[in-house]
Amino acid sequence: MIMDNLIEKKEMAASWFQELQNQICAEFETIETEDKGILSDLPAGHFEEKSWTRPGGGGGSMRIMNGRVFEKVGVNTSIVHGEFSEEFRGSIAGAKEDGKFWAAGISVVVHPQNPFVPAAHMNTRFIVTSKSWFGGGGDLTPIRPAEKQAEKFHVDLKATCDKHNSDYYTKYKQWCDEYFYLKHRNEPRGAGGIFFDNLNSNNFDADFAFTKDVGSTFKDSYASIVRATMNTPWNDADREYQEIRRGRYVEFNLLYDRGTLFGLKTGGNIEAILMSLPPRVRWP
Amino acid sequence: MIMDNLIEKKEMAASWFQELQNQICAEFETIETEDKGILSDLPAGHFEEKSWTRPGGGGGSMRIMNGRVFEKVGVNTSIVHGEFSEEFRGSIAGAKEDGKFWAAGISVVVHPQNPFVPAAHMNTRFIVTSKSWFGGGGDLTPIRPAEKQAEKFHVDLKATCDKHNSDYYTKYKQWCDEYFYLKHRNEPRGAGGIFFDNLNSNNFDADFAFTKDVGSTFKDSYASIVRATMNTPWNDADREYQEIRRGRYVEFNLLYDRGTLFGLKTGGNIEAILMSLPPRVRWP
Repeated sequence: MIMDNLIEKKEMAASWFQELQNQICAEFETIETEDKGILSDLPAGHFEEKSWTRPGGGGGSMRIMNGRVFEKVGVNTSIVHGEFSEEFRGSIAGAKEDGKFWAAGISVVVHPQNPFVPAAHMNTRFIVTSKSWFGGGGDLTPIRPAEKQAEKFHVDLKATCDKHNSDYYTKYKQWCDEYFYLKHRNEPRGAGGIFFDNLNSNNFDADFAFTKDVGSTFKDSYASIVRATMNTPWNDADREYQEIRRGRYVEFNLLYDRGTLFGLKTGGNIEAILMSLPPRVRWP
Repeated sequence: MIMDNLIEKKEMAASWFQELQNQICAEFETIETEDKGILSDLPAGHFEEKSWTRPGGGGGSMRIMNGRVFEKVGVNTSIVHGEFSEEFRGSIAGAKEDGKFWAAGISVVVHPQNPFVPAAHMNTRFIVTSKSWFGGGGDLTPIRPAEKQAEKFHVDLKATCDKHNSDYYTKYKQWCDEYFYLKHRNEPRGAGGIFFDNLNSNNFDADFAFTKDVGSTFKDSYASIVRATMNTPWNDADREYQEIRRGRYVEFNLLYDRGTLFGLKTGGNIEAILMSLPPRVRWP
Protein backbone atom coordinates (compact mmCIF):
# COMPACT_ATOMS: atom_id res chain seq x y z
CA MET A 1 0.00 0.00 0.00
CA ILE A 2 1.50 3.31 -1.04
CA MET A 3 -0.30 5.33 1.61
CA ASP A 4 2.31 4.58 4.24
CA ASN A 5 4.51 7.61 4.73
CA LEU A 6 2.95 9.25 1.70
CA ILE A 7 3.10 12.69 3.27
CA GLU A 8 6.76 12.20 4.03
CA LYS A 9 7.45 10.96 0.49
CA LYS A 10 5.74 13.98 -1.02
CA GLU A 11 7.77 16.29 1.20
CA MET A 12 11.02 14.57 0.34
CA ALA A 13 10.33 14.69 -3.38
CA ALA A 14 9.13 18.31 -3.37
CA SER A 15 12.05 19.52 -1.33
CA TRP A 16 14.52 17.72 -3.62
CA PHE A 17 13.08 19.42 -6.71
CA GLN A 18 13.50 22.78 -5.00
CA GLU A 19 17.05 21.92 -3.90
CA LEU A 20 17.91 20.90 -7.49
CA GLN A 21 16.39 24.15 -8.77
CA ASN A 22 18.75 26.06 -6.47
CA GLN A 23 21.75 24.00 -7.57
CA ILE A 24 21.06 24.39 -11.29
CA CYS A 25 20.43 28.13 -11.03
CA ALA A 26 23.66 28.59 -9.04
CA GLU A 27 25.66 26.56 -11.57
CA PHE A 28 24.25 28.44 -14.56
CA GLU A 29 24.90 31.81 -12.93
CA THR A 30 28.50 30.74 -12.29
CA ILE A 31 28.87 29.79 -15.95
CA GLU A 32 27.60 33.25 -16.92
CA THR A 33 30.52 34.83 -15.02
CA GLU A 34 33.05 32.58 -16.80
CA ASP A 35 32.07 33.60 -20.35
CA LYS A 36 34.93 34.59 -22.68
CA GLY A 37 32.86 34.27 -25.89
CA ILE A 38 31.65 36.78 -28.48
CA LEU A 39 29.09 38.33 -26.13
CA SER A 40 31.37 38.61 -23.09
CA ASP A 41 31.13 42.42 -23.21
CA LEU A 42 27.55 42.04 -22.02
CA PRO A 43 26.94 41.75 -18.27
CA ALA A 44 26.65 38.27 -16.77
CA GLY A 45 23.02 37.19 -16.42
CA HIS A 46 21.06 36.56 -13.22
CA PHE A 47 17.91 34.58 -12.61
CA GLU A 48 14.70 36.38 -11.82
CA GLU A 49 12.02 34.55 -9.91
CA LYS A 50 8.29 34.70 -10.41
CA SER A 51 5.98 32.76 -8.16
CA TRP A 52 2.50 31.75 -9.21
CA THR A 53 -0.41 30.06 -7.51
CA ARG A 54 -2.74 27.61 -9.17
CA PRO A 55 -6.45 28.41 -8.80
CA GLY A 56 -7.19 24.70 -8.18
CA GLY A 57 -4.47 24.30 -5.52
CA GLY A 58 -0.72 24.75 -5.15
CA GLY A 59 1.65 26.78 -7.27
CA GLY A 60 5.15 27.15 -8.50
CA SER A 61 8.39 29.04 -8.81
CA MET A 62 9.56 30.13 -12.23
CA ARG A 63 13.16 31.26 -12.52
CA ILE A 64 14.17 32.80 -15.83
CA MET A 65 17.51 34.19 -16.94
CA ASN A 66 18.27 36.07 -20.16
CA GLY A 67 22.05 36.06 -20.10
CA ARG A 68 25.10 36.25 -22.35
CA VAL A 69 25.67 32.48 -22.40
CA PHE A 70 22.09 31.43 -21.69
CA GLU A 71 19.95 33.51 -24.05
CA LYS A 72 16.86 32.14 -22.34
CA VAL A 73 16.81 29.54 -19.61
CA GLY A 74 13.90 28.60 -17.40
CA VAL A 75 14.26 26.52 -14.24
CA ASN A 76 10.78 25.91 -12.88
CA THR A 77 9.44 23.93 -9.96
CA SER A 78 5.82 23.34 -9.10
CA ILE A 79 3.86 21.58 -6.37
CA VAL A 80 0.21 21.32 -7.34
CA HIS A 81 -2.82 19.34 -6.32
CA GLY A 82 -6.50 19.16 -7.14
CA GLU A 83 -8.88 17.11 -9.21
CA PHE A 84 -8.59 16.25 -12.88
CA SER A 85 -11.65 17.11 -14.94
CA GLU A 86 -13.76 14.10 -15.98
CA GLU A 87 -12.30 14.49 -19.47
CA PHE A 88 -8.78 13.61 -18.30
CA ARG A 89 -9.39 11.06 -15.56
CA GLY A 90 -9.40 8.12 -17.95
CA SER A 91 -5.96 8.95 -19.34
CA ILE A 92 -4.13 9.27 -15.99
CA ALA A 93 -3.11 6.18 -14.03
CA GLY A 94 -5.05 5.80 -10.80
CA ALA A 95 -7.22 8.88 -11.40
CA LYS A 96 -10.29 7.18 -12.80
CA GLU A 97 -12.36 7.13 -9.62
CA ASP A 98 -12.14 10.53 -7.98
CA GLY A 99 -9.66 12.34 -10.23
CA LYS A 100 -7.61 13.52 -7.25
CA PHE A 101 -3.94 14.21 -7.86
CA TRP A 102 -0.83 15.69 -6.31
CA ALA A 103 2.24 16.43 -8.40
CA ALA A 104 5.62 18.03 -7.88
CA GLY A 105 8.39 18.47 -10.40
CA ILE A 106 11.19 20.45 -11.90
CA SER A 107 11.45 21.51 -15.52
CA VAL A 108 14.52 23.03 -17.18
CA VAL A 109 14.74 24.37 -20.73
CA VAL A 110 17.91 26.03 -22.04
CA HIS A 111 18.31 28.03 -25.25
CA PRO A 112 21.93 29.24 -25.44
CA GLN A 113 23.11 32.32 -27.38
CA ASN A 114 25.93 30.43 -29.10
CA PRO A 115 24.76 28.09 -31.90
CA PHE A 116 27.62 25.74 -30.99
CA VAL A 117 26.23 25.19 -27.47
CA PRO A 118 23.47 22.55 -27.63
CA ALA A 119 20.01 23.45 -26.34
CA ALA A 120 18.83 21.19 -23.53
CA HIS A 121 15.81 20.06 -21.58
CA MET A 122 15.35 18.19 -18.31
CA ASN A 123 12.28 17.36 -16.30
CA THR A 124 11.65 15.10 -13.32
CA ARG A 125 8.43 14.70 -11.39
CA PHE A 126 6.62 12.72 -8.68
CA ILE A 127 2.92 12.16 -9.23
CA VAL A 128 0.37 10.80 -6.77
CA THR A 129 -3.18 9.72 -7.58
CA SER A 130 -4.50 6.50 -6.08
CA LYS A 131 -1.14 5.32 -7.45
CA SER A 132 2.21 7.08 -7.34
CA TRP A 133 5.18 7.18 -9.68
CA PHE A 134 8.22 9.08 -10.88
CA GLY A 135 8.83 10.29 -14.41
CA GLY A 136 11.23 12.49 -16.28
CA GLY A 137 14.29 12.58 -18.47
CA GLY A 138 16.78 14.82 -20.16
CA ASP A 139 17.68 15.42 -23.78
CA LEU A 140 20.05 17.48 -25.87
CA THR A 141 19.28 19.45 -29.03
CA PRO A 142 22.54 20.40 -30.74
CA ILE A 143 22.21 23.07 -33.42
CA ARG A 144 25.62 22.96 -35.10
CA PRO A 145 27.18 19.47 -35.13
CA ALA A 146 28.19 18.42 -31.60
CA GLU A 147 28.92 14.70 -31.83
CA LYS A 148 31.44 14.81 -28.97
CA GLN A 149 28.99 16.60 -26.70
CA ALA A 150 26.11 14.30 -27.57
CA GLU A 151 28.33 11.31 -26.96
CA LYS A 152 29.44 12.62 -23.56
CA PHE A 153 25.82 13.32 -22.59
CA HIS A 154 24.83 9.74 -23.41
CA VAL A 155 27.87 8.25 -21.69
CA ASP A 156 27.04 10.19 -18.53
CA LEU A 157 23.36 9.22 -18.61
CA LYS A 158 24.23 5.58 -19.25
CA ALA A 159 26.65 5.49 -16.29
CA THR A 160 23.92 6.88 -14.04
CA CYS A 161 21.26 4.49 -15.36
CA ASP A 162 23.60 1.50 -15.01
CA LYS A 163 24.18 2.28 -11.34
CA HIS A 164 20.45 1.72 -10.74
CA ASN A 165 19.30 -0.91 -13.22
CA SER A 166 21.11 -2.41 -16.19
CA ASP A 167 17.92 -2.25 -18.31
CA TYR A 168 17.19 1.46 -17.77
CA TYR A 169 19.52 3.09 -20.28
CA THR A 170 18.52 1.02 -23.31
CA LYS A 171 14.84 1.25 -22.47
CA TYR A 172 14.76 4.95 -21.58
CA LYS A 173 17.02 6.03 -24.46
CA GLN A 174 14.66 4.32 -26.91
CA TRP A 175 11.65 5.91 -25.23
CA CYS A 176 13.32 9.30 -25.62
CA ASP A 177 14.11 8.72 -29.30
CA GLU A 178 10.50 7.75 -29.95
CA TYR A 179 9.05 10.60 -27.93
CA PHE A 180 11.14 13.49 -29.25
CA TYR A 181 10.40 12.81 -32.91
CA LEU A 182 8.80 15.21 -35.39
CA LYS A 183 6.55 12.88 -37.37
CA HIS A 184 5.50 15.53 -39.88
CA ARG A 185 9.14 16.08 -40.85
CA ASN A 186 10.43 12.55 -40.25
CA GLU A 187 13.24 13.88 -38.12
CA PRO A 188 14.34 13.62 -34.47
CA ARG A 189 14.21 16.79 -32.35
CA GLY A 190 17.85 16.44 -31.40
CA ALA A 191 20.47 14.00 -30.15
CA GLY A 192 18.15 12.35 -27.63
CA GLY A 193 18.87 11.38 -24.06
CA ILE A 194 16.55 9.42 -21.77
CA PHE A 195 12.82 9.57 -21.04
CA PHE A 196 10.92 7.58 -18.41
CA ASP A 197 7.43 7.58 -16.96
CA ASN A 198 5.21 5.56 -14.60
CA LEU A 199 8.28 4.43 -12.69
CA ASN A 200 7.18 2.54 -9.61
CA SER A 201 9.27 -0.54 -8.82
CA ASN A 202 7.57 -0.90 -5.39
CA ASN A 203 10.72 0.56 -3.91
CA PHE A 204 10.23 4.29 -3.35
CA ASP A 205 13.76 4.82 -2.09
CA ALA A 206 15.32 3.22 -5.15
CA ASP A 207 13.07 5.07 -7.61
CA PHE A 208 13.61 8.36 -5.82
CA ALA A 209 17.38 7.83 -5.79
CA PHE A 210 17.34 7.19 -9.54
CA THR A 211 15.22 10.28 -10.21
CA LYS A 212 17.56 12.42 -8.11
CA ASP A 213 20.56 10.99 -9.92
CA VAL A 214 19.05 11.82 -13.32
CA GLY A 215 18.67 15.45 -12.26
CA SER A 216 22.17 15.72 -10.84
CA THR A 217 23.72 13.99 -13.84
CA PHE A 218 21.94 16.37 -16.20
CA LYS A 219 23.24 19.36 -14.23
CA ASP A 220 26.86 18.19 -14.20
CA SER A 221 26.99 16.78 -17.71
CA TYR A 222 25.25 19.73 -19.36
CA ALA A 223 27.31 22.31 -17.41
CA SER A 224 30.44 20.59 -18.67
CA ILE A 225 29.10 20.62 -22.27
CA VAL A 226 28.30 24.34 -22.03
CA ARG A 227 31.80 25.13 -20.69
CA ALA A 228 33.37 23.11 -23.53
CA THR A 229 31.47 24.95 -26.29
CA MET A 230 30.53 28.43 -25.05
CA ASN A 231 33.65 30.23 -26.27
CA THR A 232 33.48 28.85 -29.84
CA PRO A 233 33.22 31.79 -32.27
CA TRP A 234 30.12 31.94 -34.44
CA ASN A 235 28.87 34.08 -37.34
CA ASP A 236 25.54 35.34 -38.73
CA ALA A 237 25.03 32.21 -40.80
CA ASP A 238 25.40 30.02 -37.69
CA ARG A 239 22.93 32.23 -35.88
CA GLU A 240 20.39 32.18 -38.73
CA TYR A 241 20.65 28.42 -38.87
CA GLN A 242 20.14 28.25 -35.10
CA GLU A 243 16.97 30.35 -35.28
CA ILE A 244 15.58 28.16 -38.07
CA ARG A 245 16.34 24.97 -36.13
CA ARG A 246 14.63 26.48 -33.11
CA GLY A 247 11.48 26.53 -35.23
CA ARG A 248 11.55 22.73 -35.07
CA TYR A 249 11.64 22.98 -31.29
CA VAL A 250 8.51 25.16 -31.35
CA GLU A 251 6.79 22.78 -33.75
CA PHE A 252 7.52 19.84 -31.47
CA ASN A 253 6.38 21.52 -28.28
CA LEU A 254 3.11 22.88 -29.70
CA LEU A 255 2.21 19.90 -31.89
CA TYR A 256 3.32 16.92 -29.81
CA ASP A 257 4.61 17.61 -26.30
CA ARG A 258 2.22 15.97 -23.87
CA GLY A 259 3.20 18.21 -20.97
CA THR A 260 2.61 21.36 -22.99
CA LEU A 261 -0.72 20.29 -24.44
CA PHE A 262 -1.86 18.88 -21.11
CA GLY A 263 -0.90 22.07 -19.30
CA LEU A 264 -2.67 24.30 -21.80
CA LYS A 265 -5.83 22.20 -21.76
CA THR A 266 -6.01 21.97 -17.98
CA GLY A 267 -5.59 25.67 -17.29
CA GLY A 268 -1.97 25.52 -16.15
CA ASN A 269 0.20 28.62 -15.81
CA ILE A 270 0.65 29.80 -19.44
CA GLU A 271 3.91 31.59 -18.75
CA ALA A 272 5.46 28.57 -17.03
CA ILE A 273 4.25 26.13 -19.70
CA LEU A 274 5.41 28.22 -22.66
CA MET A 275 8.71 29.11 -20.97
CA SER A 276 10.11 26.33 -23.18
CA LEU A 277 9.67 28.34 -26.40
CA PRO A 278 12.92 29.78 -27.78
CA PRO A 279 13.59 33.55 -27.52
CA ARG A 280 14.12 34.19 -31.24
CA VAL A 281 12.95 31.95 -34.03
CA ARG A 282 12.73 32.09 -37.81
CA TRP A 283 10.61 30.40 -40.41
CA PRO A 284 12.11 32.14 -43.47
CA MET B 1 -27.76 15.25 -57.70
CA ILE B 2 -24.43 16.99 -57.60
CA MET B 3 -22.84 14.76 -60.23
CA ASP B 4 -24.29 16.78 -63.10
CA ASN B 5 -21.55 18.90 -64.63
CA LEU B 6 -19.27 18.04 -61.74
CA ILE B 7 -16.22 17.91 -63.97
CA GLU B 8 -17.06 21.34 -65.31
CA LYS B 9 -17.61 22.72 -61.80
CA LYS B 10 -14.27 21.40 -60.62
CA GLU B 11 -12.56 22.97 -63.61
CA MET B 12 -14.27 26.31 -63.08
CA ALA B 13 -13.37 26.40 -59.38
CA ALA B 14 -9.77 25.28 -59.89
CA SER B 15 -9.14 27.75 -62.67
CA TRP B 16 -10.62 30.59 -60.58
CA PHE B 17 -8.28 29.85 -57.69
CA GLN B 18 -5.33 29.98 -60.10
CA GLU B 19 -6.61 33.22 -61.67
CA LEU B 20 -6.97 34.76 -58.19
CA GLN B 21 -3.44 33.59 -57.32
CA ASN B 22 -2.15 35.47 -60.38
CA GLN B 23 -4.14 38.59 -59.49
CA ILE B 24 -3.00 38.68 -55.87
CA CYS B 25 0.66 38.09 -56.73
CA ALA B 26 0.53 40.85 -59.36
CA GLU B 27 -1.09 43.28 -56.91
CA PHE B 28 1.41 42.54 -54.14
CA GLU B 29 4.36 42.91 -56.55
CA THR B 30 2.97 46.29 -57.64
CA ILE B 31 2.73 47.38 -53.99
CA GLU B 32 6.38 46.39 -53.51
CA THR B 33 7.39 48.90 -56.22
CA GLU B 34 5.38 51.68 -54.56
CA ASP B 35 7.12 51.47 -51.16
CA LYS B 36 8.35 54.75 -49.67
CA GLY B 37 8.80 53.39 -46.13
CA ILE B 38 11.82 52.75 -43.91
CA LEU B 39 13.04 49.79 -45.98
CA SER B 40 12.58 51.43 -49.40
CA ASP B 41 16.36 51.30 -50.03
CA LEU B 42 15.98 47.54 -50.38
CA PRO B 43 15.00 46.20 -53.81
CA ALA B 44 11.30 45.53 -54.49
CA GLY B 45 10.42 41.87 -53.88
CA HIS B 46 9.28 39.32 -56.45
CA PHE B 47 7.42 36.05 -56.02
CA GLU B 48 9.22 32.78 -56.55
CA GLU B 49 7.20 29.74 -57.47
CA LYS B 50 7.68 26.19 -56.29
CA SER B 51 5.48 23.44 -57.63
CA TRP B 52 4.90 20.24 -55.73
CA THR B 53 3.11 16.99 -56.44
CA ARG B 54 1.17 14.99 -53.91
CA PRO B 55 2.09 11.30 -53.70
CA GLY B 56 -1.61 10.38 -53.38
CA GLY B 57 -2.68 12.52 -56.38
CA GLY B 58 -2.56 16.11 -57.59
CA GLY B 59 -0.29 18.90 -56.40
CA GLY B 60 0.09 22.60 -55.99
CA SER B 61 1.82 25.84 -56.71
CA MET B 62 3.49 27.72 -53.87
CA ARG B 63 4.43 31.33 -54.52
CA ILE B 64 6.52 33.00 -51.86
CA MET B 65 7.90 36.54 -51.71
CA ASN B 66 10.32 37.97 -49.16
CA GLY B 67 10.08 41.66 -49.94
CA ARG B 68 10.53 45.11 -48.42
CA VAL B 69 6.80 45.59 -47.71
CA PHE B 70 5.84 41.93 -47.49
CA GLU B 71 8.46 40.35 -45.23
CA LYS B 72 6.98 36.94 -46.01
CA VAL B 73 3.91 36.30 -48.07
CA GLY B 74 2.73 32.97 -49.45
CA VAL B 75 0.05 32.65 -52.12
CA ASN B 76 -0.58 28.97 -52.65
CA THR B 77 -3.02 27.02 -54.78
CA SER B 78 -3.56 23.28 -54.78
CA ILE B 79 -5.68 20.78 -56.65
CA VAL B 80 -5.53 17.40 -54.98
CA HIS B 81 -7.48 14.18 -54.97
CA GLY B 82 -7.27 10.77 -53.41
CA GLU B 83 -8.74 8.80 -50.55
CA PHE B 84 -8.90 9.80 -46.90
CA SER B 85 -7.48 7.23 -44.50
CA GLU B 86 -10.09 5.32 -42.49
CA GLU B 87 -9.12 7.47 -39.49
CA PHE B 88 -10.42 10.65 -41.14
CA ARG B 89 -13.43 9.45 -43.11
CA GLY B 90 -15.83 9.89 -40.24
CA SER B 91 -14.97 13.54 -39.75
CA ILE B 92 -15.39 14.66 -43.37
CA ALA B 93 -18.87 15.19 -44.83
CA GLY B 94 -19.72 12.63 -47.48
CA ALA B 95 -16.48 10.70 -47.10
CA LYS B 96 -17.68 7.94 -44.83
CA GLU B 97 -18.24 5.26 -47.45
CA ASP B 98 -15.25 5.21 -49.76
CA GLY B 99 -13.18 8.14 -48.46
CA LYS B 100 -12.72 9.57 -51.96
CA PHE B 101 -12.14 13.30 -52.22
CA TRP B 102 -11.18 16.06 -54.61
CA ALA B 103 -10.23 19.51 -53.35
CA ALA B 104 -8.98 22.76 -54.84
CA GLY B 105 -8.22 25.97 -53.04
CA ILE B 106 -6.15 29.06 -52.57
CA SER B 107 -4.43 30.07 -49.36
CA VAL B 108 -2.81 33.45 -48.66
CA VAL B 109 -0.81 34.41 -45.55
CA VAL B 110 0.86 37.80 -45.25
CA HIS B 111 3.43 38.88 -42.65
CA PRO B 112 4.43 42.49 -43.41
CA GLN B 113 7.74 44.10 -42.42
CA ASN B 114 6.06 47.16 -40.92
CA PRO B 115 4.38 46.54 -37.53
CA PHE B 116 1.73 49.11 -38.49
CA VAL B 117 0.60 47.02 -41.47
CA PRO B 118 -1.79 44.31 -40.26
CA ALA B 119 -0.94 40.67 -41.00
CA ALA B 120 -3.63 38.90 -43.02
CA HIS B 121 -4.93 35.53 -44.08
CA MET B 122 -7.38 34.39 -46.76
CA ASN B 123 -8.38 30.95 -47.92
CA THR B 124 -11.15 29.69 -50.20
CA ARG B 125 -11.70 26.15 -51.34
CA PHE B 126 -14.07 23.79 -53.20
CA ILE B 127 -14.27 20.26 -51.84
CA VAL B 128 -15.94 17.24 -53.41
CA THR B 129 -16.63 13.91 -51.73
CA SER B 130 -20.00 12.24 -52.25
CA LYS B 131 -21.10 15.78 -51.37
CA SER B 132 -19.60 19.07 -52.48
CA TRP B 133 -19.20 22.46 -50.84
CA PHE B 134 -17.29 25.72 -50.66
CA GLY B 135 -15.46 27.05 -47.63
CA GLY B 136 -13.10 29.83 -46.76
CA GLY B 137 -12.78 33.27 -45.27
CA GLY B 138 -10.40 36.10 -44.59
CA ASP B 139 -9.16 37.72 -41.42
CA LEU B 140 -6.89 40.50 -40.27
CA THR B 141 -4.29 40.42 -37.48
CA PRO B 142 -3.22 43.98 -36.65
CA ILE B 143 -0.07 44.25 -34.55
CA ARG B 144 -0.07 47.91 -33.59
CA PRO B 145 -3.57 49.39 -33.15
CA ALA B 146 -5.33 49.65 -36.54
CA GLU B 147 -8.97 50.34 -35.73
CA LYS B 148 -9.58 52.23 -38.98
CA GLN B 149 -8.11 49.41 -41.03
CA ALA B 150 -10.02 46.72 -39.17
CA GLU B 151 -13.22 48.72 -39.60
CA LYS B 152 -12.66 49.14 -43.34
CA PHE B 153 -11.94 45.41 -43.70
CA HIS B 154 -15.22 44.53 -42.00
CA VAL B 155 -17.20 47.14 -43.95
CA ASP B 156 -15.86 45.73 -47.22
CA LEU B 157 -16.58 42.11 -46.23
CA LYS B 158 -20.07 43.03 -45.05
CA ALA B 159 -20.87 44.79 -48.33
CA THR B 160 -19.79 41.69 -50.23
CA CYS B 161 -21.70 39.30 -47.97
CA ASP B 162 -24.85 41.45 -48.18
CA LYS B 163 -24.82 41.29 -51.97
CA HIS B 164 -25.27 37.53 -51.69
CA ASN B 165 -27.28 36.85 -48.55
CA SER B 166 -28.29 39.19 -45.76
CA ASP B 167 -27.52 36.50 -43.14
CA TYR B 168 -23.97 35.76 -44.26
CA TYR B 169 -22.02 38.57 -42.63
CA THR B 170 -23.40 38.16 -39.10
CA LYS B 171 -23.12 34.39 -39.25
CA TYR B 172 -19.67 34.22 -40.84
CA LYS B 173 -18.20 37.03 -38.73
CA GLN B 174 -19.23 35.17 -35.57
CA TRP B 175 -17.83 31.91 -36.92
CA CYS B 176 -14.53 33.71 -37.55
CA ASP B 177 -14.45 35.20 -34.05
CA GLU B 178 -15.06 31.78 -32.53
CA TYR B 179 -12.57 30.02 -34.77
CA PHE B 180 -9.60 32.39 -34.47
CA TYR B 181 -9.52 32.38 -30.69
CA LEU B 182 -6.59 31.36 -28.48
CA LYS B 183 -8.35 29.51 -25.66
CA HIS B 184 -5.20 29.06 -23.59
CA ARG B 185 -4.70 32.82 -23.48
CA ASN B 186 -8.34 33.89 -23.58
CA GLU B 187 -7.62 36.23 -26.45
CA PRO B 188 -8.66 36.57 -30.11
CA ARG B 189 -5.96 36.06 -32.77
CA GLY B 190 -6.70 39.43 -34.31
CA ALA B 191 -9.48 41.72 -35.55
CA GLY B 192 -11.44 38.91 -37.18
CA GLY B 193 -13.15 38.86 -40.55
CA ILE B 194 -15.36 36.08 -41.89
CA PHE B 195 -15.12 32.29 -41.91
CA PHE B 196 -17.48 29.87 -43.66
CA ASP B 197 -17.54 26.14 -44.37
CA ASN B 198 -19.82 23.46 -45.78
CA LEU B 199 -21.49 26.06 -48.00
CA ASN B 200 -23.89 24.32 -50.38
CA SER B 201 -27.17 26.14 -50.90
CA ASN B 202 -28.10 23.79 -53.77
CA ASN B 203 -27.14 26.59 -56.12
CA PHE B 204 -23.56 26.08 -57.30
CA ASP B 205 -23.51 29.28 -59.32
CA ALA B 206 -24.57 31.41 -56.35
CA ASP B 207 -22.15 29.73 -53.93
CA PHE B 208 -19.30 29.96 -56.42
CA ALA B 209 -20.05 33.63 -57.08
CA PHE B 210 -19.95 34.34 -53.34
CA THR B 211 -16.68 32.45 -52.91
CA LYS B 212 -15.12 34.36 -55.82
CA ASP B 213 -16.36 37.65 -54.37
CA VAL B 214 -14.79 36.88 -50.98
CA GLY B 215 -11.42 36.35 -52.66
CA SER B 216 -11.64 39.52 -54.76
CA THR B 217 -12.85 41.60 -51.83
CA PHE B 218 -9.96 40.38 -49.71
CA LYS B 219 -7.48 41.31 -52.45
CA ASP B 220 -8.87 44.83 -52.94
CA SER B 221 -9.56 45.63 -49.30
CA TYR B 222 -6.24 44.34 -47.99
CA ALA B 223 -4.23 45.99 -50.78
CA SER B 224 -5.84 49.27 -49.82
CA ILE B 225 -5.04 48.70 -46.11
CA VAL B 226 -1.41 47.93 -46.94
CA ARG B 227 -1.10 51.10 -49.07
CA ALA B 228 -2.61 53.17 -46.25
CA THR B 229 -0.17 51.92 -43.60
CA MET B 230 3.04 50.81 -45.30
CA ASN B 231 4.86 54.15 -45.09
CA THR B 232 4.21 54.67 -41.38
CA PRO B 233 7.57 54.97 -39.57
CA TRP B 234 8.33 52.37 -36.92
CA ASN B 235 11.07 51.76 -34.33
CA ASP B 236 12.77 48.82 -32.60
CA ALA B 237 10.14 48.67 -29.87
CA ASP B 238 7.36 48.36 -32.50
CA ARG B 239 9.33 45.64 -34.20
CA GLU B 240 9.99 43.73 -30.97
CA TYR B 241 6.30 43.92 -30.11
CA GLN B 242 5.43 42.65 -33.60
CA GLU B 243 7.72 39.63 -33.23
CA ILE B 244 6.20 38.79 -29.85
CA ARG B 245 2.65 39.08 -31.22
CA ARG B 246 3.65 36.82 -34.08
CA GLY B 247 4.30 34.16 -31.44
CA ARG B 248 0.54 34.11 -30.84
CA TYR B 249 0.04 33.47 -34.54
CA VAL B 250 2.37 30.46 -34.31
CA GLU B 251 0.62 29.21 -31.19
CA PHE B 252 -2.75 29.41 -32.92
CA ASN B 253 -1.65 27.67 -36.10
CA LEU B 254 0.16 24.79 -34.38
CA LEU B 255 -2.28 24.29 -31.49
CA TYR B 256 -5.68 24.91 -33.11
CA ASP B 257 -5.75 25.48 -36.86
CA ARG B 258 -7.70 22.61 -38.40
CA GLY B 259 -6.13 23.03 -41.83
CA THR B 260 -2.60 22.93 -40.42
CA LEU B 261 -3.17 19.93 -38.15
CA PHE B 262 -5.13 18.10 -40.85
CA GLY B 263 -2.42 18.75 -43.43
CA LEU B 264 0.36 17.57 -41.13
CA LYS B 265 -1.51 14.42 -40.11
CA THR B 266 -2.47 13.46 -43.67
CA GLY B 267 1.00 13.81 -45.16
CA GLY B 268 0.42 17.13 -46.93
CA ASN B 269 3.26 19.25 -48.32
CA ILE B 270 5.09 20.45 -45.17
CA GLU B 271 6.51 23.54 -46.83
CA ALA B 272 3.13 24.65 -48.16
CA ILE B 273 1.33 23.96 -44.87
CA LEU B 274 3.89 25.73 -42.68
CA MET B 275 4.23 28.64 -45.11
CA SER B 276 1.85 30.39 -42.69
CA LEU B 277 4.46 30.66 -39.93
CA PRO B 278 5.96 34.16 -39.52
CA PRO B 279 9.54 34.82 -40.68
CA ARG B 280 10.88 36.10 -37.34
CA VAL B 281 9.29 35.48 -33.98
CA ARG B 282 10.17 36.03 -30.33
CA TRP B 283 9.16 34.45 -27.06
CA PRO B 284 11.36 36.57 -24.79
